[in-house]
This record gives sequence, structure tokens and C-alpha cells, in this order.
Amino acid sequence: MTKKYINEIVKQLSTNELLSKVYHKGIKSTVMPSVKNLKEIMDDLKSVIFPGYFGNPGMETYSIEYHIGATLDRIYSRLKKEIKRGYCFSCAEEGKSDCSLCGEQSEKAVEMLIKELPKIRHLLGTDALAAYEGDPASRSVGETIFSYPSIKALTNYRISHELFILGVPLIPRIISELAHSETGIDIHPGAEIGEKFFIDHGTGVVIGETCIIGRNVRLYQGVTLGAKSFPLDEQGNPIKGIARHPVVEDDVVIYSGATILGRITIGRGSQIGGNVWLTKSVEPGSVIRASF
Amino acid sequence: MTKKYINEIVKQLSTNELLSKVYHKGIKSTVMPSVKNLKEIMDDLKSVIFPGYFGNPGMETYSIEYHIGATLDRIYSRLKKEIKRGYCFSCAEEGKSDCSLCGEQSEKAVEMLIKELPKIRHLLGTDALAAYEGDPASRSVGETIFSYPSIKALTNYRISHELFILGVPLIPRIISELAHSETGIDIHPGAEIGEKFFIDHGTGVVIGETCIIGRNVRLYQGVTLGAKSFPLDEQGNPIKGIARHPVVEDDVVIYSGATILGRITIGRGSQIGGNVWLTKSVEPGSVIRASF
Amino acid sequence: MTKKYINEIVKQLSTNELLSKVYHKGIKSTVMPSVKNLKEIMDDLKSVIFPGYFGNPGMETYSIEYHIGATLDRIYSRLKKEIKRGYCFSCAEEGKSDCSLCGEQSEKAVEMLIKELPKIRHLLGTDALAAYEGDPASRSVGETIFSYPSIKALTNYRISHELFILGVPLIPRIISELAHSETGIDIHPGAEIGEKFFIDHGTGVVIGETCIIGRNVRLYQGVTLGAKSFPLDEQGNPIKGIARHPVVEDDVVIYSGATILGRITIGRGSQIGGNVWLTKSVEPGSVIRASF
Amino acid sequence: MTKKYINEIVKQLSTNELLSKVYHKGIKSTVMPSVKNLKEIMDDLKSVIFPGYFGNPGMETYSIEYHIGATLDRIYSRLKKEIKRGYCFSCAEEGKSDCSLCGEQSEKAVEMLIKELPKIRHLLGTDALAAYEGDPASRSVGETIFSYPSIKALTNYRISHELFILGVPLIPRIISELAHSETGIDIHPGAEIGEKFFIDHGTGVVIGETCIIGRNVRLYQGVTLGAKSFPLDEQGNPIKGIARHPVVEDDVVIYSGATILGRITIGRGSQIGGNVWLTKSVEPGSVIRASF
Amino acid sequence: MTKKYINEIVKQLSTNELLSKVYHKGIKSTVMPSVKNLKEIMDDLKSVIFPGYFGNPGMETYSIEYHIGATLDRIYSRLKKEIKRGYCFSCAEEGKSDCSLCGEQSEKAVEMLIKELPKIRHLLGTDALAAYEGDPASRSVGETIFSYPSIKALTNYRISHELFILGVPLIPRIISELAHSETGIDIHPGAEIGEKFFIDHGTGVVIGETCIIGRNVRLYQGVTLGAKSFPLDEQGNPIKGIARHPVVEDDVVIYSGATILGRITIGRGSQIGGNVWLTKSVEPGSVIRASF
Amino acid sequence: MTKKYINEIVKQLSTNELLSKVYHKGIKSTVMPSVKNLKEIMDDLKSVIFPGYFGNPGMETYSIEYHIGATLDRIYSRLKKEIKRGYCFSCAEEGKSDCSLCGEQSEKAVEMLIKELPKIRHLLGTDALAAYEGDPASRSVGETIFSYPSIKALTNYRISHELFILGVPLIPRIISELAHSETGIDIHPGAEIGEKFFIDHGTGVVIGETCIIGRNVRLYQGVTLGAKSFPLDEQGNPIKGIARHPVVEDDVVIYSGATILGRITIGRGSQIGGNVWLTKSVEPGSVIRASF
Repeated sequence: MTKKYINEIVKQLSTNELLSKVYHKGIKSTVMPSVKNLKEIMDDLKSVIFPGYFGNPGMETYSIEYHIGATLDRIYSRLKKEIKRGYCFSCAEEGKSDCSLCGEQSEKAVEMLIKELPKIRHLLGTDALAAYEGDPASRSVGETIFSYPSIKALTNYRISHELFILGVPLIPRIISELAHSETGIDIHPGAEIGEKFFIDHGTGVVIGETCIIGRNVRLYQGVTLGAKSFPLDEQGNPIKGIARHPVVEDDVVIYSGATILGRITIGRGSQIGGNVWLTKSVEPGSVIRASF
Repeated sequence: MTKKYINEIVKQLSTNELLSKVYHKGIKSTVMPSVKNLKEIMDDLKSVIFPGYFGNPGMETYSIEYHIGATLDRIYSRLKKEIKRGYCFSCAEEGKSDCSLCGEQSEKAVEMLIKELPKIRHLLGTDALAAYEGDPASRSVGETIFSYPSIKALTNYRISHELFILGVPLIPRIISELAHSETGIDIHPGAEIGEKFFIDHGTGVVIGETCIIGRNVRLYQGVTLGAKSFPLDEQGNPIKGIARHPVVEDDVVIYSGATILGRITIGRGSQIGGNVWLTKSVEPGSVIRASF
Repeated sequence: MTKKYINEIVKQLSTNELLSKVYHKGIKSTVMPSVKNLKEIMDDLKSVIFPGYFGNPGMETYSIEYHIGATLDRIYSRLKKEIKRGYCFSCAEEGKSDCSLCGEQSEKAVEMLIKELPKIRHLLGTDALAAYEGDPASRSVGETIFSYPSIKALTNYRISHELFILGVPLIPRIISELAHSETGIDIHPGAEIGEKFFIDHGTGVVIGETCIIGRNVRLYQGVTLGAKSFPLDEQGNPIKGIARHPVVEDDVVIYSGATILGRITIGRGSQIGGNVWLTKSVEPGSVIRASF
Repeated sequence: MTKKYINEIVKQLSTNELLSKVYHKGIKSTVMPSVKNLKEIMDDLKSVIFPGYFGNPGMETYSIEYHIGATLDRIYSRLKKEIKRGYCFSCAEEGKSDCSLCGEQSEKAVEMLIKELPKIRHLLGTDALAAYEGDPASRSVGETIFSYPSIKALTNYRISHELFILGVPLIPRIISELAHSETGIDIHPGAEIGEKFFIDHGTGVVIGETCIIGRNVRLYQGVTLGAKSFPLDEQGNPIKGIARHPVVEDDVVIYSGATILGRITIGRGSQIGGNVWLTKSVEPGSVIRASF
Repeated sequence: MTKKYINEIVKQLSTNELLSKVYHKGIKSTVMPSVKNLKEIMDDLKSVIFPGYFGNPGMETYSIEYHIGATLDRIYSRLKKEIKRGYCFSCAEEGKSDCSLCGEQSEKAVEMLIKELPKIRHLLGTDALAAYEGDPASRSVGETIFSYPSIKALTNYRISHELFILGVPLIPRIISELAHSETGIDIHPGAEIGEKFFIDHGTGVVIGETCIIGRNVRLYQGVTLGAKSFPLDEQGNPIKGIARHPVVEDDVVIYSGATILGRITIGRGSQIGGNVWLTKSVEPGSVIRASF
Repeated sequence: MTKKYINEIVKQLSTNELLSKVYHKGIKSTVMPSVKNLKEIMDDLKSVIFPGYFGNPGMETYSIEYHIGATLDRIYSRLKKEIKRGYCFSCAEEGKSDCSLCGEQSEKAVEMLIKELPKIRHLLGTDALAAYEGDPASRSVGETIFSYPSIKALTNYRISHELFILGVPLIPRIISELAHSETGIDIHPGAEIGEKFFIDHGTGVVIGETCIIGRNVRLYQGVTLGAKSFPLDEQGNPIKGIARHPVVEDDVVIYSGATILGRITIGRGSQIGGNVWLTKSVEPGSVIRASF
């Protein structure tokens, strides 16, 4: 390439006009969150939640407090930094010229998350049990903790959900996308999911932002819990935050490929057959099959 | 293992007979393209297309030309090398004993790609806008650029498509597989896709080689735009390059799990419902629902 | 955070009660298998099976025995170690206090796997041919070996299947999950699959533990070969190991999104249409279409 | 180890008493400078000073501004951060509870350093020439730039010297130790060294803090330019900052193992023989040999 | 290269005859210690000894026990493994066919080392003070801990010395060579060195196996504390373990380049001048200058 | 920094004038040799020369040919590439505009080196024996192979010497500098050194380009075998390639800090005492002591 040729392309790519919609300029040199760091922080969180399975190989009982303490401390300082970047990104997107509160907010958020870790661990323990009970091919609860995509996706979901509730921008989404990319299971951090939840195989599962799922629910691959449609505002943009996804009550099973759309309720103990397309509420105890 | 035992297996695995269908021997020590390098080159391309979001954290306005210039220069020399490996691989597969033109061809191809980068950036800017407008859960355009699988898949697609048009072998396929693996979205580099395209969730989407998609089209997870069947030649091998995938006109929405097969046309502004199975053309403005 | 605050959380997370269901304590300091190592071992296996495509760039004919020999030797010692960890994990899960036989068992298992490599390579060679013949978009057999998700998934499957047959715990599952995560194709290591098998696109495919698949079978994305239901034992746990997945005979094609459940038989040469939901056996030569 | 045993050691190692002299507690969570980062920053600086030799392989003339610009920008932000850590470390050592000025100071320091880069490059260019002219074994100036320990040590020295002059704490010392460790040449950042300086072989050379060295001086391995003694203050601590090392005038050669101590002057054009022990000034043009 | 050519060289390099003196064959697949692991273990040890300076950036007072506990636990399991490799190497060198005791021995050794860490930290604290007091160019004690070669060399020495006393083979040597390579200071792990020891600059210093050095001693670069000669046994091999290096009493200063050989005693408070060559004992309070 | 400010410095640093002496521009985009690659190649060479000590942990007798063969093959292709870069660098330095012969030359050079490996291994085997016999502190020959700086320096020397003899530019120098940096021992690749050579401690040793050293010679730290002076040509540049360093005959011992300069001969079996300064030949059997 001649100098002139590359100069021209560089200039084009650096013009304000071409940059306007694709260039992120942080406030006072703040940078984007690091996806790589968030992956490592998630690995640390997994080693705190499931000690012996992840992190610190060969950890002994006498040293478990040291490892959990040291890892929590590292999570605290690293995650605080990433969450702050999330807040600052949000400020920049909103056109603010200052984000002086972001530091404090991120400190609070990470503290709150850490306080919820015992609860999160308890929930994931019930999820692992559900995986063992729900899959005849599993050999032990430990196998599901160590290698099932369901547990990977739910670990990221349950953590991102806490951050979502706390109002942390961007970071919950990144954490859930990490699991989506690895497992094909796409759970929005806003969804509410009860204990003992299991997704078998999982690829293609979508659980929308305003879903409410009870306890002891089981899904199979390819299930969508989605929105039927969404209202637009006067500018034609979708109105954010409206409850538009299903409510799934306790003890429901939804088989592979079923699509359930809109703010409807699947009554307790129902079974929704594979490939079913459902846009209306069903009574508790219903058994719905596709009418092929 | 005794020496004799391993010797035997090694010998078996090294016989011409067992090697014949699984051994790649490059022309004059040329090697296979490096998937790891191509990943890094894609990261560089993303930092040129979306500055501030990817690469060079904390880049300032005054230095944007330096960063884009230096990164383009690195892309130029590294991608040229990988594209050349793609050409040489193709030569070897075709049984040529020489690939003297591959160097020149790869130089031209990478120059052409770089020239198209302003256009590619423009298109991806419209795609990001489409993602923001099409997903009530999104908070800002920037969030979709930084974390939505749709943008990841389309970035790789739009780059691999340029290389596909230029006739570069293998490399476009590798680039699209990188995105397929990460997002579950499988877009063939040969497909033609207009501006403002959005795929929500995305897992399981398949867009075939000869698809033509207009502007402002939206797909959901699990949508297939595939071939109905393919003719075989006299040796029973599929005939390559025949138009066999759908044409989707502007402003079409296709909901999750729909399967659209064959060289049919989905008329402008149509809505294809979830799980629909469609093998015939539909008029503009059609609303197709599955007949469950 | 004050010292008191973090101390409290650490203590909570270290209590026996909260740990009981989520803490893995190996026998005599044995550790969990390393997923990272298993990935690298799989890369080594791919370089032995498909020399020239993977590993050792620029390998020449005269040195092929050296590379295969050295790589096999490294696989032998590294995989033996991981398999032993799998056995020890299983012992710990079963509550044993000793795993003195695990070393010997893992040595035997890795020897047996290595002995089967010529057969595995042969099978994968036929799979690559099937991919070339089955996809009009493919340009050469080599392209499918190097970049098709079908070959990635089948390489992991065919190796994990040998280990599964040998009774190795956990490791086959990890190996198949590696491919599931990368390709969206979930093949249980217990399934039996004949030669010349091809899965196009692949995302969302599920093939259950007790499936039996003949030769020359082709699947498309989103196909499920699953169980209809599974019996529970007196404690309400699923009974393990019962044949509960389909038998697919030679020369069958199953199109995208089809769901085939239960121990039924798809007769030789049948074609199962897209999105079909099938829970009963079909005769050889059947052509089944969804009754939309 | 029993729990009790390790607990005891951990407690001992965490007591205030045992920690008092060995524990660094930063002000408001500031951390120590990263030696690894400083190494990488030095690599960046070398690629700016000697383009084509270091960094950016295959850089072309047309893109040199881009590379230098992008690299300088990265140096600017990364080095600023490390220098700030140096200032904060110094504040903490001095017992301050606040280091609010450190950010501003570090910004100024890195700007000043960057402004001096053209001068530094000029000086290092003369040093490379001196190496070529002074070593019959060298084949070209380029060889000395790329592989001579003299140039490595002087690159680090000339950069650390600028930072030393600017009053930056700790960082100059770390940079000079990096070169000392790699080359065995220990030049204190405080020394003043003129152009066209060459140290052959270099191992064991020591050049003290208050040395003044003219232009066109050549040293061999094992030469010490040190202090004869140093006065103590009333508390018995050495008084800092007193001129206590030699002045070496232009065109002097000092052969291997010579030791020159105290604030004496080696007159212009002198030659100091190997292993000479010298504590008195010598006239210009002197030829000093050891009186063995 | 033709196949025949490389085959020939490989065969030559694999013959028993050519291998006999250069091939290490471990007992039952035991492997050599990992120098890389030992480096990382030394980094962990430094973070335990000097918390806040090394490892865990931003560690807070409230979490110091967690970090020290978790790091000690990691050191325990990793160092035990390397020490065991050292024992097994020694067994193999001695021609044993079994090394069943090595596991137990290494466990004991690492426990003993950990018990000595408070003492080692105390000694290194005095060494840091000595560096600060002995070098007018130093700005604070912390600067010497963080960046002085003296402290690096003494940290490795004081740890390797404990292992040497415990009879651990090979590992002490590797640890001291790590420091020798980085600093040019070669202290044999067998030497005994009292508190408050300082080596300024350090390159070229050699301290032999049977040296005994008191407290508050200061050396400069290039000082040798060596053996004058060593007796051979009847086979002409040097007799190992004889006291053959100097005894240096408290408060001695030895200036650069001095060479002190043989089992002689440098009396308390003596000063040995630069480049002095000394092979006879000197009285306390002596001031020895080279007679140039 | 304002845009203007950094622009100005970048421009200054990119001007032809300032670049003239410090910018390397390769012929047709050839790049500098990679020091990192050369380090890895040296590690590979060490694993071929001393199998079981370095590389391939746990290598067994039955697989030694595979490992040596595969490693040699990798060395062959990687080293050829680096040597070619060395030749091309030399062409560029000499102002050539073409380096078409460099490929062939580098192929020949690496082949010749590989042919000499059995000889090199034999010599290093004798060097290891010399280290064991010459150091009372050594416990076994294996310990010297694995951890003595003498063996590290001689491994690099003996390899770089072969390449030097073959006329390879730059690469031998880089390889010897790698060892110099790690051990403080600076042996010019041009020196000729017989078998059973040992350098104890080693820091500060310098062995010049035209030295000739016999068999069974032993040096201690700080010994210089240097040039007394060197003649200049009419332009004032040193005349290259003149024999100007000592000849040291068989069975000589040279103690620490001795300096031997000029083309003189140290007769067979002589002993040169520590710190001796010698510029005249000595008879065989001489015992030279410094006349302090």
C-alpha cells in the first residue's frame, strides 16, 4: 500500500462523521469494563461458592477460611473496579460530564453482592440437586456442579441478578452473556428464578427480563420464555421495563422447543410439551401437548 | 506401555493408507491459517470499527488517528499472511504443486477489505441502532455494541462477506465459525444482508450461503433461512453455488424457531410467526402464523 | 468493608452447614480434573488424528512418525493423570476413603484409548467425507476437517465414547461438554454412532445417552434424539442406564428442529422433516413431514 | 499439617510486631508500582527510540508516525500510572496520610520525559556509534543497537536519569535495576553521562549517584566509579546527596577492573589501566597503570 | 533435509553410548523439579514475608491473615511437590531403584521451612535496615525491600539455607541460582550469615559453602569469600564438605573486588580494602589496604 | 497533553534526520530476529542435548527417539527462520537491496548445526564432568547439568560457536548474550574452547573473540581473557578479525579476577593466581601469583 492510500482510509475512519455512532469516549479517561477481568472474577466467585470444585486445587478443611477470605478480598477490589466502569459507561451514554458518585455506588454494590453470597450458594446447591434428580444420565451431584451447563448458566445468572436488582448497569448483561456464549442458555439478569431450577442440555433456551419462575421448575433445550410484543413510545422506541414475559409457577416442566410468550401464567405443576406454542395462561396441573 | 506397543500404534498411525484422508501436506512447507491469529486480527478490526469500545483503553480524540493507523498497519501485515495461507491451502486441496500467485492475491484482498472498512463500519452502526430499537431490554446503543451477540455475529459476518466476495478461500469460513461458536448464530459469509439488521438472542439461527436479506430485518433465536434440497451432479456430489436459500425483503420480522427453506421470497414488511415452517413465497405485508 | 463485616461473611461461607452440599473434598488431597489440561490434550489428539491440519505446523512426511510418537507419549502421561483424577473424584463421591486402584485403572484406560486411535481416525475420515458430500457450501474435505463444527463435535464424541465404554467417570462428560460449549452440539458419550455421520450447522442438536445411530446418517441443527420420560426408583430418583433414546438406522436424514423421543426406531433410509415431533417408530424408507 | 499448626504460623506472621518493618500499607489502597508493567513500558520506549529494531515488526516508512504516535499514547497513560504509584509510595514512606498532588506530578513528569525523547534518542544514537567504533568484534552499528548490553543499560539509564532529574521517586531506581539485572551494569539514575559512551562487556560495572562523565568515554567490565566513604549524620545515618563520586572528563578510557573512588577528577584523554585502584585526581592525558 | 539424513542424526542422539552421560532417567517416571514453579513459589514466599510490597496488591489490614494463610497453603502443597522431586532426583543419581521415603521427607522439610518463616522475616527486616543505613543513595527502608538486589539475593539465600540445613537436595541450589542469575550475587545455601547483612551493588560477589558471617557485615560488589584450594580423595575427586571458606566476624566491611580465601578469620570490626587479596587471618579491628 | 503537543513530538521522532541512525528498515519487509523465539529454540536444543533434564518431563526410554526427532524437526524449521532473519539483517546493514540467497544459506547453516549436535553433546558431557570434579560443593554430575551457570553458558557458547564458524551473522551474538545476561559469563562465539572446560561461579568472566583454549581448563569468576589493544584502520575504525586474545593451553587453572590480555600463550598446566594482571606469555607449568 502506498502511504497515500492508507492515509486516506485512516482519515476517513477518524472523521467525526463516521465516528459519531460507533465511538465511545469515556468521561475523564474512564475505560470500558474488562470482559477478561470479569471472567476471572467469575472464576473466583465459583471457587468461593463451590470450594474444592473450582480454584485452589487440593484445598484442605483447615485452610478453607483463608482461601475464601483471600479470594473474597480479591473479588471485592477487582469487581468494584469493573462495576465502577459500568456506572461510568452509563454516565457517558447519558451524556453526563461527571461521574463522581460512581465510586461510592460501586463500593456499595459489591458489598451487597458479597453479603448475598451465602444465599446464592444455597440456591445453587438446590439447583445442583435438581440437575442430579432431573437427569438419569448424571452420576452424582458433584458431576453436575463440575460439568453441567445448567449450573454454569445459573451461577452467572444468580450473581448477575443480584447486581441487576442493585441497579448496576452493563455488568450484569456482560456476565449473563459470558454464560450465554459458553452454554447457549440466555437468561436475562432481570428474571426472577426460584430454587431447585434445572435446564437440561440448554442450548437455545431464552428467559426474558420480566419472567418470574417458581421453585422446582425444569426446562429442556430450546425453550423460549419470551415477550409476545412490546409497545412503542411516541418516538417509536420500545417502552422499557414493562412486565411482558411469562410467570411460571412451582413444579412446572417445559419440554424442548416449547415457546411461551407474553405475561401469561403457567399454573403450578403443569407440563408443557415439546414444540408447544403458547400465548395464553394455563391452569395449575395442565398438560399441554402440541396438536400435531 | 512397552516400547513395542507404542511403536506399533505410531507406525499404524503413520502409514500412507491410514493417513490418506486425514493428512494435510502443504505446498512447500506452507502451513494452515492460524485460528488464534485470526481471532486477534478480528479484535484489532473491532478496535478500528468501534474505537473506545474495544482495544486501546483510554484512547483520546487527539490520538485516534495514530491508533487507527497503527492498528490498520498491523492488520494489513498479519491478515495478508493468513489470507495467503488460505489461498495456499486451497491450491494444495486442488492438487496444485505451486502457489506462486497466492502472495499477490492475498495482498490485493487485504487492501480491498481495508478500503471497505468505512462502509462496514457504517453498516454495523445501523445494526447497533437496530438492536437498541428492537430490544426493550437494551439501555443504550453502546450497550448493544459492547455486549450483544447480534453485533458480534454481524461484525464477523460483514468482514467475512467482503473476503468471500473477493474469492478468498477458507478464511471467511473460519471467521464466521468464530462467531458461530461464540454466539450460536451461523451466518454463511456468502449471504447478502442489508443495513439495520438485528438478531435477538440468536442461538440456533442459520442463514444460508445464497440468502438475500433486505434492510431493517429482525430475526429471533432459532430461525433457519435454509435450503430445501440441493441437486447432485453425476457423481452424486452436491452442485455448488446454486441459489437455494430465501430472499427476505425489507422490514420483515421473523419470530423464534421459524424455518424458511428454499429460494422463496418473503415480501416486504411481512411478519413470520414463531415455529412457522415455510417453503413457499409470501406476498409483501403477509402475516404468517403457525397453524397449531 | 470493615474487618468485622468480611469476617462474618467468610465465617458463614466456611460453616459446615453451608458447605455440606457444595464442597468437594478429595481423598488424600486428590484434586479435580483440569479442564484446561483436557482441552490441550484434545488439541494433541487432534494433531495425531489429523496431522498437518492441527499442531506441528509445517510437519514433513519424513518426520511424521516423530511427531505422532512424541505427541502420543505426551498424551499418554497427561491423560492418564486426568483420568486418574476422574476415578478419584468418583471414589470420593461414592464416599470411599481410599482409591488405590485408580492409578492402575487409568493406565489401562489410556492404553486402550490409544489402541483405538487408528479406528477413531478412520471413522472421523468418513465423517469428514460425509460433511463434504452433505453440504453444497463446502469446498473440500480439508475445509470440513479444519473448520466444521460437525467434525469438532464428532472428534470429541468419538474419543469420549471410547472412554465411556471403558467405564471412565467424569472425563467423557467433560470432553463432550467442551464440544457442546464450542459448537452447540450435545452428544452424550454413551451414544453409539456409526461411520459417515454429519450434522449440518449443529446448534441445538441433542443426542441422548442410549441412542444408537447407524452409518451414513445426516442431521440438521436443532434436532433432538431424546428420552420421552424416565422411570423413578422408590426414592424418586431417576433409574440410571435404561435404554430410553431412539435407534436411527443407516442412511437416515433428519431435518432441522425435529424432535424424536423414546426408544423407537427410525427405519433405514427414512427422511424426517423439519420440526417433526415423533414418538413412535417408523418403517424403513418412511418420509415424515410435520402436519402443519 | 494440622489446622492448629498452620493457624499458629499465620497468626505469628500477621502480628503487628512481626509486620512492623516489612509491611507496606499504601495510602487509600494505592498499590506498589508494577515491575512487569515497567518492563513492558521500557519495551515500548525502545520501539519509539529505535523503530524497526524493536516492536512493530515489519513497520514501513509510510506508517511510522502511526506507530510512534500510538505507542507514545500508550506509554503516556501507562507510565503516568506507574509514576503516580511511585509518588504515592514515597508519600506513604514519609508517613503522609494523603497524596492528592501525586496525580498532577506524575502527569507533568511523563510529559517532560516524552518531550526529552528526541534528545534521548540522539544520545543513544551516539552511544551505538561508540559501541561500533570501540569493539573490533562488532559488525555494524545496528548489531550494537540490537544486541549489546551497553545499549540496553544506557537506554534504561538515559530514561531513568530524566525521571530522576524530575524528582520522580522509586521508578528511576526500578528502571535502572531492570538493566542491572539483565546486563550486570549498575548505573545510578543520578549520574550524568555525556554522549558517545560505551561500556564493553559490562558485567560488574558500577557508576555512582553523583558521577559526572564527559563525552566519548569508554569503560570495560568490572570498573567501579564509587564513593570512598560517606559521612554520617548525628543519628549515624549516611547523609544523602553529597557529591562523592568521580568526575570523568571527555575521551577517557578505563580498563577492566579499575576502581576509582571519591570526588576526584580523571582529566581529559586519560587512560586508566586494568585493576588500577585510584583515589586521587589525575591530570589530563595521564596514563595510569597498576604497579604490580 | 532428506528423511535419511535426519533419521541418522536422531538415531545417533538416541544411542545408549551418546546418551550415557547426559540423559536423566527418573525413578518410576518422576520428573525434574520445575524451575518455573520454584520462581512462582519464591514470589509467594516474598508476598508472605513482605506483605504489601509483593503479591496481593491493595491488601488491607483486615484481610492480611486470609492472604497469608491462603498463600502459605499454596506454598505448602507446591513446594512439597518440588522438594519431593529434588529428593527423587538425588535417589536416581545415587542409583537407587526406589524412593519411597521421599514423600515423607519433603513433607517434613516444607513444614520445617514454614515454621522458620517468622525468623526468616525478622532477619530480612534487619537486612533491609542495613541496606538503608549502608547506602547514602537509598531514600527509605521500603525502597530497599522493593528494589535492591541485596534483598533479593538474601531472601533467596535465607530460604535456601533453611532447606540446605534440612538436607534437601538440589532445590536450595536452584533457588540460590535464581538469585545469582538475577543479581550477579552467588551465595551458596550452605553459608551461615548473621543478621543485618548488606551487599551493595553486588555483581560478582561469591560467598562459599562453608563461610560463617557474623552480624552487621557489609560487602561491596566483586567480593569473593572463597576456598584457597581443596583436597582430592584417592580417586582424584574433591572431598566434599570440608570447612574451606572464611569466617567473617561481626561489624566487618569488605570493599569491592576484595578476595578472601581459605578457612581464615576476619576479626570483628575489621575493614578490608578494595581489591585486597587475603589468605591469612586478621585480628579484630584490622584495616587492610592493598599495597599497590 | 493537547493534540498539538503530542503531534509535535511524534513528528520530531518521525523525521528522517532524527531517524537516520536509529531506524532499521529491512529489505522487503523482512523483520529482525525474535529473541523470544531464539530463547525457546535454545530450550528445545537443551532438551535434545540433555534429555530428561530439560523438556518433555517423564520421557521414557522407548519414546526417546520420537521426542528427539520431533524436537529436532521443530528446531529445524524455527531456527532456519531466525537465521534467515539474521542474514537479511546483515544484507540490509550492508546496503544491499536484495537478499535472495539468504534462504538457502540459512537452510545450510541449520543443517550443519544439527549434524554437529552429537559432537556438541559429547563436549558438554565432558564440561559437566569437569564441573563436578572441579567444585567440591557439587553433589553429582546431574546437578551441574541442571543448575550450574557454567553449563548454561557453555551450552549457548558451543551452539553459537558452530553458527559463527558457518558465517551466520547476528544470531550467534544474540545466543551468547542470552547466556551472558543469565549467567554474567560473556564468551564470544568466535572463541575456540576444548573439552572439559569449567567456569566456577562465573560472574564477570570475559572470553574474547580470538581466544584459543585447550582441554581441561578451569576458570573462576571475574577472569578476563581480553585484547590488550586493537589497531585502527585509516578511517580510525578498529580493524576486525585480528588475533588479539590469549591462547590458553591444556590443564590450565586461572583464579578469580585474573586479567590476561593480548595474543599471548599460557603454557600447559600453568596456574594463574587470583587478580593477576598478565600481558606476557608464560611457560608450561608456570605458577603466577600477584605480587601484592
